[in-house]
Amino acid sequence: MEVKLGVWIRQNSRHVYGDGRQYLLKKIGDLGSIRQAALEMGMSYRAAWGKIKATEEGLGIKLLERTVGGKAGGGAILTEEAKRLIGAYEEFRQGLDELVNERLTKSLKKQGLVL
Amino acid sequence: MEVKLGVWIRQNSRHVYGDGRQYLLKKIGDLGSIRQAALEMGMSYRAAWGKIKATEEGLGIKLLERTVGGKAGGGAILTEEAKRLIGAYEEFRQGLDELVNERLTKSLKKQGLVL
Repeated sequence: MEVKLGVWIRQNSRHVYGDGRQYLLKKIGDLGSIRQAALEMGMSYRAAWGKIKATEEGLGIKLLERTVGGKAGGGAILTEEAKRLIGAYEEFRQGLDELVNERLTKSLKKQGLVL
Repeated sequence: MEVKLGVWIRQNSRHVYGDGRQYLLKKIGDLGSIRQAALEMGMSYRAAWGKIKATEEGLGIKLLERTVGGKAGGGAILTEEAKRLIGAYEEFRQGLDELVNERLTKSLKKQGLVL
């Protein structure tokens, strides 16, 4: 038996961040491009851009700086705040499943249930 | 900003318990009837019965005893193990959202982010 968790960070009842957004933002950071990240994730550029925009607006922080020209023909790099958001979410999410699993096991045991 | 959680207890990758199942089981206990519980939840009898069956099989415990005849024309009552499962899940779930919210806030603050 295991517990699977879904985590949705919401602002005014709207989804603004979570595991999927974290993955997307890291991928953009790694590849330096929204377009490349979207491609790798099987998502349209428009969808990826919309998600980033919704997070920026929801959280009130700027996540990406656009780079212009150069070999790559322009791209995107993470802002300092985006890096801090990724770091914070990583720390928060790390070990959360285990913590929740332990909590459930403890409650079940207290009731004499070993499932 | 708030964190919303989804909790899925799984056995061999199959969903066997969670917030919805807990609600259904409690409702059956309150009403003494799968049919009445299903009706109140806008669910078919077949769907409700299937969920209970999947939980029983997944967790390897019996949840309901059938009652026969009487004024209500037969119904269902919770087994001792079902009551313990409800109690355990209630304890586990109580305060979990707050705990996770605090964990996130702490990680964000450590990164100097107040969202």
